[in-house]
Amino acid sequence: MKIIIVGATGTVGKHITAALKNDHEVIKAGSKSGDVQVDITSPESIENFFEQIGNFDALISATGNAHFGPLATMKDADFRSGLNSKLMGQVNLVLIGQHFINPKGSFTLTSGILSEDPIVLGANLSTVNGAINSFVKAAAIELDNGVRINAVSPGVFEESPDYFPFFPGHIPVKMDRVTQAYLKSVLGALTGEVIKVF
Amino acid sequence: MKIIIVGATGTVGKHITAALKNDHEVIKAGSKSGDVQVDITSPESIENFFEQIGNFDALISATGNAHFGPLATMKDADFRSGLNSKLMGQVNLVLIGQHFINPKGSFTLTSGILSEDPIVLGANLSTVNGAINSFVKAAAIELDNGVRINAVSPGVFEESPDYFPFFPGHIPVKMDRVTQAYLKSVLGALTGEVIKVF
Repeated sequence: MKIIIVGATGTVGKHITAALKNDHEVIKAGSKSGDVQVDITSPESIENFFEQIGNFDALISATGNAHFGPLATMKDADFRSGLNSKLMGQVNLVLIGQHFINPKGSFTLTSGILSEDPIVLGANLSTVNGAINSFVKAAAIELDNGVRINAVSPGVFEESPDYFPFFPGHIPVKMDRVTQAYLKSVLGALTGEVIKVF
Repeated sequence: MKIIIVGATGTVGKHITAALKNDHEVIKAGSKSGDVQVDITSPESIENFFEQIGNFDALISATGNAHFGPLATMKDADFRSGLNSKLMGQVNLVLIGQHFINPKGSFTLTSGILSEDPIVLGANLSTVNGAINSFVKAAAIELDNGVRINAVSPGVFEESPDYFPFFPGHIPVKMDRVTQAYLKSVLGALTGEVIKVF
């Protein structure tokens, strides 16, 4: 399969890339690194990105930022930063990518545990993750030609110890479990599912 | 209690208003109707709105639009119309309203069944509803002074027969059940909950 991994050099992206690259044609994408560059906050950049790559079989998005900070001082612009990146970045990869994906292809997006198990400072991330989870459920019933879509919702990564103090009581998840969730989505047959790893 | 109802003249807003107005000081708000006007897509309008009303005990938001149309032709701008209205409109009522609400006050937002039970043409609404549900869970653990927040997630209203063809197999929900959900949020003690009416 021809598989695009957006965020291929990130914490989880590098594991997914390693797991797929021997058996598949993997195209590594990133904002600054990888084989092809894309700015997911720009629909024009995403359009150019797909024009450059052409048709593909699977897209994995393991990317996107959100605002992290106290609700008490959060402003419209703070909140929109997460909507523009982790939410609309991933949504636009699907809205635009649906016109380039091969029949029976798949999209796999990334949400996260905070949609249902919130932490202090995480209101924007919770919101974005909940949005992604519901988006894949809805998009799954409309995608044509047997194209599938799922989200992987991981807990805090074992390889991200800097985040541990913000996740009191959370059990960090092993990278191989997270990687397997992406493989389940891409190589399996699920659609419209939120694959939880926590 | 001094209770603000945004969308007071809408399908559900008028029932909530009728249920609360005898025992409480109800301030009816709408984009064009009601006692005070507010454009929820504008943070400046929301700021002016609260300045005008001053402190309050409860805010009910039963308002907000989203894009309704096929995924196959959906564009970034279509998708953002729902983010700007039903999502950021309600989020900004909380982000700004938290500085005007009295201790032990409450916010009650509106999401909807499509977050988990999608229909064709509804991807934007599903996304927005999922976002609202996760936002209230996260905001609940950060709001100060005992302020609470919940979302009411209704199915298609019995009073909205024009929508029935888009909701095949859905059982329309009775307006008195929907109204009770808002009263449970405002007059009860729940916080961080999605109160489902379907």
